[in-house]
Amino acid sequence: MALNELGDDLSEGSPVVLYLDGKRRYLTSVERDRRLHTHKGYVELSDLIGLRYGSKVKSSTGVSFVALQPTIWDYVMKAPRRTQVMYPKDIALLAFRLGLRPGMRVVEAGTGSGALTCALAFFVRPGKVYSYEVNPEFQAVARRNIERAGLLDSVELKSGDVTQGIEEVEVDAVVLDMATPWLVVPHAYSALRGGGHFASFSPTINQVEKTVLELRRRGFVDVKSYELLMREIKVEEGAVRPETMMVGHTGYLTFARKAL
Amino acid sequence: MALNELGDDLSEGSPVVLYLDGKRRYLTSVERDRRLHTHKGYVELSDLIGLRYGSKVKSSTGVSFVALQPTIWDYVMKAPRRTQVMYPKDIALLAFRLGLRPGMRVVEAGTGSGALTCALAFFVRPGKVYSYEVNPEFQAVARRNIERAGLLDSVELKSGDVTQGIEEVEVDAVVLDMATPWLVVPHAYSALRGGGHFASFSPTINQVEKTVLELRRRGFVDVKSYELLMREIKVEEGAVRPETMMVGHTGYLTFARKAL
Amino acid sequence: MALNELGDDLSEGSPVVLYLDGKRRYLTSVERDRRLHTHKGYVELSDLIGLRYGSKVKSSTGVSFVALQPTIWDYVMKAPRRTQVMYPKDIALLAFRLGLRPGMRVVEAGTGSGALTCALAFFVRPGKVYSYEVNPEFQAVARRNIERAGLLDSVELKSGDVTQGIEEVEVDAVVLDMATPWLVVPHAYSALRGGGHFASFSPTINQVEKTVLELRRRGFVDVKSYELLMREIKVEEGAVRPETMMVGHTGYLTFARKAL
Amino acid sequence: MALNELGDDLSEGSPVVLYLDGKRRYLTSVERDRRLHTHKGYVELSDLIGLRYGSKVKSSTGVSFVALQPTIWDYVMKAPRRTQVMYPKDIALLAFRLGLRPGMRVVEAGTGSGALTCALAFFVRPGKVYSYEVNPEFQAVARRNIERAGLLDSVELKSGDVTQGIEEVEVDAVVLDMATPWLVVPHAYSALRGGGHFASFSPTINQVEKTVLELRRRGFVDVKSYELLMREIKVEEGAVRPETMMVGHTGYLTFARKAL
Repeated sequence: MALNELGDDLSEGSPVVLYLDGKRRYLTSVERDRRLHTHKGYVELSDLIGLRYGSKVKSSTGVSFVALQPTIWDYVMKAPRRTQVMYPKDIALLAFRLGLRPGMRVVEAGTGSGALTCALAFFVRPGKVYSYEVNPEFQAVARRNIERAGLLDSVELKSGDVTQGIEEVEVDAVVLDMATPWLVVPHAYSALRGGGHFASFSPTINQVEKTVLELRRRGFVDVKSYELLMREIKVEEGAVRPETMMVGHTGYLTFARKAL
Repeated sequence: MALNELGDDLSEGSPVVLYLDGKRRYLTSVERDRRLHTHKGYVELSDLIGLRYGSKVKSSTGVSFVALQPTIWDYVMKAPRRTQVMYPKDIALLAFRLGLRPGMRVVEAGTGSGALTCALAFFVRPGKVYSYEVNPEFQAVARRNIERAGLLDSVELKSGDVTQGIEEVEVDAVVLDMATPWLVVPHAYSALRGGGHFASFSPTINQVEKTVLELRRRGFVDVKSYELLMREIKVEEGAVRPETMMVGHTGYLTFARKAL
Repeated sequence: MALNELGDDLSEGSPVVLYLDGKRRYLTSVERDRRLHTHKGYVELSDLIGLRYGSKVKSSTGVSFVALQPTIWDYVMKAPRRTQVMYPKDIALLAFRLGLRPGMRVVEAGTGSGALTCALAFFVRPGKVYSYEVNPEFQAVARRNIERAGLLDSVELKSGDVTQGIEEVEVDAVVLDMATPWLVVPHAYSALRGGGHFASFSPTINQVEKTVLELRRRGFVDVKSYELLMREIKVEEGAVRPETMMVGHTGYLTFARKAL
Repeated sequence: MALNELGDDLSEGSPVVLYLDGKRRYLTSVERDRRLHTHKGYVELSDLIGLRYGSKVKSSTGVSFVALQPTIWDYVMKAPRRTQVMYPKDIALLAFRLGLRPGMRVVEAGTGSGALTCALAFFVRPGKVYSYEVNPEFQAVARRNIERAGLLDSVELKSGDVTQGIEEVEVDAVVLDMATPWLVVPHAYSALRGGGHFASFSPTINQVEKTVLELRRRGFVDVKSYELLMREIKVEEGAVRPETMMVGHTGYLTFARKAL
C-alpha cells in the first residue's frame, strides 16, 4: 500500500509510523522477518500484519508503540536533510498558494533529497512533476525517497540545469529550491501557461531581492514574498507556554503569476 | 468552469480574479451583460470571453487588469470574515498535517462562513465534507460561498451541534473551528477511524489547554499545538524589509491521532 | 519637576500622564489656568496641584483619570513620529547592550524628532549626548521635545553631517539612526575610545549588510545584528491571546565594539 | 575597578571580557599570577595590566583576544542559569518600562542567581535593591555574583517569602521573577508609592492570566503584558539571513502602575 492510500488495514508492504511519544516516531514499512530497533527494544514488524492503523504494538521490552498511517508530513520530515531545507510549514503554504490539485503539471528544480518532490507529487498525482537536478548523487538519493513514498509514477526525474532552460511548456507551476532562482525566471516564463504559478524558496534575503526584481521585469504579477515562523506550544495543566527553542528561520517563499 | 478546474480558456461562467496590484484584486466570474465596478473604472466581464487566463483587459478608464484563474487561497481570503478567522497559513498547515487527499471523508464544525469548508472540499473531492453548524443564518451564507466555489457536490451541510454527538463513523478526520472544541473530543474519538486525525483551531490559549488535556485523557496520541506567524517581505531595490504591520495572531492549531 | 525626578507630589510644572485606559493616555504638565481636553471632557490641570502621583482626578463629565508620573517610555512614544522609528523595545535593548550609565559621553546621528536623544540623555546624564542633525527643521522640533522632557542640559544639538566626520573623540558610544550608517563607520572608529560601542538602527536589511561588512573591515569586533518582535498579550478571564494586529517590523539593531 | 566604571585603563582587579569571536567570550578580572585557560591556549592575565580596553592580547598559542570592558549585559549572560531565565531583551525592556534611574528604591523577588538583581542595581545605584529569596543556597550564589559585579553596596539581600508580605514601603518598583506572582500583588500594592511600578516575569501564560486578573482587582492601572522575540541576523556578503535556531520563548513581562 503506497503513501496515504485509503483503507486502514496493515498488510505486508504497508507504510507505517511507529509512534512512541512527542519526540520519537519511526517511519518504516511492514515486512516479514524484519525488526525495527529502537532504544526501547525492537518491534517485530510482522506483528503488525492484520492490525488496523491506530493499534498498539509492544516492543521486546514491553513498551507500547502506536501504528499510525504515515502522512506526507512524515515523508518530508524524515527525508535526509541538508542544512537549509523547507519545512512542512513552507511546503504547506506553497501547495495552498499554488492550489495544487490532481492533474497539474509542475516543474521543480532542484530535486535535492526529493522531499519537496514527494509533496508536489502527492498533491498533483495523477498529474506529473518534472524534477530537474544537476547532481547525479542527489538524484539517486531522491529516487529512493520518492520510491519509498510510492510516488515515482507521478515524477519524471530529469538531469539538467534549469538556468539553461526548461523543456516543458504550458505547465501549471514552476517551483524552485535552488541557489540562483533569479536566473531561472525567464525560462519559467516560457514554460508556464498564462496565469501559471512561479514559486521559489530561498534562505537568504539577497536571493529574494534578486528574484523579485527579476520577476517584476519579466512580466510576472502578484509577486509576493513571505516568511513563516512556527512555534510549538507546550501544554501542561496550568502551565502552557511556547517551546524554549525553535527553528527561527528556514527560508523565504516568493510567489508570482505569469501575465501574458 | 468551477474552481480550479484545469484548462485556461475563459468562457461564460469561468471564475476569474481581476488583478490590479499587490493590494487590490477582485474575485468574480465571467458573465454577459455584467460590469465589475472598481475605483479605476469598470470592466465589461463579457470582454473576457475567449481570452486565456493571464491575459490583460482594460477598464473603462484604460487601466489594465490581469485575468487570473482563482485559487482556493482566493476563495478563503474573499469569504466574509468574522473577527477571528483561519488564514491561508493556518488552513494550509492543517491540510498538509492531515494529508488531505481525494476520497477522504472529513467532519467539520462549525461551518461558519464556509471558507474552511471550501478548502477541505477542495482537497478531498470527490470525497465528502460533513459540515455541522448550529446557526441557520451562517449555514445559508456558507452555502452560497461553497456554491460559488463550485464545491457543493463535495459538501453535506448539516444542522446540528457536535458537542451533542457526531453521526458519521470511520471518518478520516474531524476538524473543529468552534468555541468549545474540548467538548467534542469524545465524539470525535467515536467518529474517527483508527489513526484518524483530530484538528482544532482556537484563538485563545485557554481553549488549547482544555482541548489538549482532554485529547490526552481520551486516547489520542501525537498531540501537538502550533502557532504560525506569517510576515510579508517588502522588496524595493536596495531596500528590503518586512512589512511594518502584520497580523500578529489568528489562532493556535492543535492536532492529534486516534489510538485504538 | 523634570522627567522622572524622584518625589511624588504634583506641583506647578510637574510632568504628568493622565491615564484613562489601555488605549488612551495623555502626556502633559501641570499648569494653572489650563485645561486638557479629551473626548471624555476636560481636566482642569490646576486640580492636580498638591495631589500625589497615582491619584485620580475627574474630568468635567465625571470620568476618572489617574495622574501617573511619566517615564522615558512615555516621552519616546509621544514624540512626533516619522514612518520608520525606533520603538521602546529597540531603544531599551540598545541602552542595555551599551550599558549606558551616568557620566557617559555619546555621539548620536541623526537627531530626528529627538526621541532617541531623550532616551540617551536620560541614561547618561550628567554625561552628554552630542546629537548631529543636517535638517534645521528637525533640529528645532527635537529641541522642543528634549526641553519638554527636561533633558536639554545633557544634550548638545549639533548641525552637521556625520558622514563627513565627527568632532568628538574618546566617546563611549556612537549611535546612528540614519539612512547611510556604513558611511559613518570610519568616523565612528576615530571618535570612539578603545572598546567603545557602535550601534545602528536600520529599517532595511540592505543597510544592515553594508554596515556589518564595513564594521568588519574597519577594526570592529563583536559585531552583531538583531531584530526584536514585541507582541502584546490580551488577557480576559479564560480567554488569553496575543493581540491580532502587531507592529511586525521597526528595524534591525547592529552593535559592535572598537578594537585597537 | 567595578563594573562599568568610567575610564579605560586596565589595572589589577579590572573586570574584563576576553573576546575571541562571535560565539566565544570570557568574563574575568585582571589578576597577577593567574592564567585564563581556553581551548585556544591560555592568556596571562597580568599581561593586561597597563593596557587600554580595546587592546589585543595573545594567548600562549598566538591567538588574539580583544580585551573589552564588560557591560551589564555580560554579567546577565554569564550568570549561572536555571532553565527559564530572563534574557537581556527582557531585562532591558523591564528597565526601560520602569524608567529605572539612580536613586530609586526597588523590591525584587526572588533573588535567584542574582542576574536580574545586578541589572536593577546597575540602573538604580546609589539607590537600593531589596532582594528577597527563600532559598539560602540561591542567596549565597547570588551574593557572589553581585559582589563580582561590584554592585553589592546597592543591594540588600533579604531572606524571606514575599507572598507573606514586603517590609519596605513607598518603593518605586516591585519586580517579580517567581512562580506565584499573583500572590504578591496585594503586598506589592502596600509597598509601592502612588503611581509606582509593578513588573513580573513569567514563563507560562497561566501565570500571566492570574497575575493580570489580580492586578485589575487590586487597584492597579495601565496593566499590560508583552512577549519579546529576538532574532540574530547572520550577515555574509550577499547572503543575509536570520539564524536558523533561536530562543523562541523565555517568558512574558507584565507591567502595572499603582493607582491610589
